[in-house]
Amino acid sequence: MRSHAVHLTMNVDKRMDFVHITPDVEDAVRDSGVQEGLCLVNAMHITASVFINDNESGLHSDYKRWLEALAPFDPSPETYHHNRTGEDNADAHHKRQIMGREVVVAITSGKLDLGPWERIFYGEFDGRRPKRVLIKIIGE
Amino acid sequence: MRSHAVHLTMNVDKRMDFVHITPDVEDAVRDSGVQEGLCLVNAMHITASVFINDNESGLHSDYKRWLEALAPFDPSPETYHHNRTGEDNADAHHKRQIMGREVVVAITSGKLDLGPWERIFYGEFDGRRPKRVLIKIIGE
Amino acid sequence: MRSHAVHLTMNVDKRMDFVHITPDVEDAVRDSGVQEGLCLVNAMHITASVFINDNESGLHSDYKRWLEALAPFDPSPETYHHNRTGEDNADAHHKRQIMGREVVVAITSGKLDLGPWERIFYGEFDGRRPKRVLIKIIGE
Repeated sequence: MRSHAVHLTMNVDKRMDFVHITPDVEDAVRDSGVQEGLCLVNAMHITASVFINDNESGLHSDYKRWLEALAPFDPSPETYHHNRTGEDNADAHHKRQIMGREVVVAITSGKLDLGPWERIFYGEFDGRRPKRVLIKIIGE
Repeated sequence: MRSHAVHLTMNVDKRMDFVHITPDVEDAVRDSGVQEGLCLVNAMHITASVFINDNESGLHSDYKRWLEALAPFDPSPETYHHNRTGEDNADAHHKRQIMGREVVVAITSGKLDLGPWERIFYGEFDGRRPKRVLIKIIGE
Repeated sequence: MRSHAVHLTMNVDKRMDFVHITPDVEDAVRDSGVQEGLCLVNAMHITASVFINDNESGLHSDYKRWLEALAPFDPSPETYHHNRTGEDNADAHHKRQIMGREVVVAITSGKLDLGPWERIFYGEFDGRRPKRVLIKIIGE
């Protein structure tokens, strides 16, 4: 069995934004030498997501408005008890639960076995500081 | 290490519906010969889900109403910017994020290690055309 | 390839609550002897979740209020058709979809490869009876 791990560092200068990371994951799969296996890609921070969807800017702006409606930013410790800790990012912990922490993608014949429109994104909900993404590959 | 991949083609004649696919996944596990491992089942399209829940029709109708309330169908490009592309399925990209892209199920002693009520479903949110599901199994 | 499975039994005396299970998962990883691999942790019941987020009580109370707003408890079979079966837990099947069924965590150098604030939780949405969590580890 082979295994391979890569850490990406994300620097998003907005509070909320999405970054296309499929090319980074493809590089990691190629470097791993794995022909058949599984590739886990996860945010290592709890106010961020890794998800798979469309690389289309209109959809991304829709997602932002939708997530803001489902879990609005509000630094008040009355609205979110989490913000009693001195943080102002409780909303980001909620948005991340909607979009998910991780994806697991099959590797077949040495490549990510993605559908025609599947692209991998990092979702940032409390940006303006460096955060990490883990790519872990196992297989043969 | 063994690996095995199966693609299912789903043909759902409604815009939104759920299809029980546990038997297909069980067949793939048996055909793989894997006794101990992991089984990934994912939608290969970004307006569809694979999820695990109850095989109960009342619950499925509840899910449909709930998802419609959280992310209503609306072809207008004002409501969803994604629909400026000429698509009318922005809602489906949102519903899929709630229900998820994939499940990972353990294989123990050659069988899916599911709880008593766990059943695997394909969730279609923009049907009326063929779409694919990937079953990828690795283990020994 | 090594594999290892552990079942936890959860006894939550409230309808909805979160239980920190990172130490249990760490024990399973150590007992597995796996140095490089993947660790799946999933609820085996369809009214419960396993998720990764912050071990902070204010956030957990925020999550409970938020999930209650998104999918309110209501035993009425008019509100939720699932409750026509005689169950009163349709809301729990919805809450679980928001929080997810499972997490997959990388194992690197014999340890869970978690970010600094990542902690693994069991999310109960229809408690007051024993339920199981599966930890499945594969790797080398």
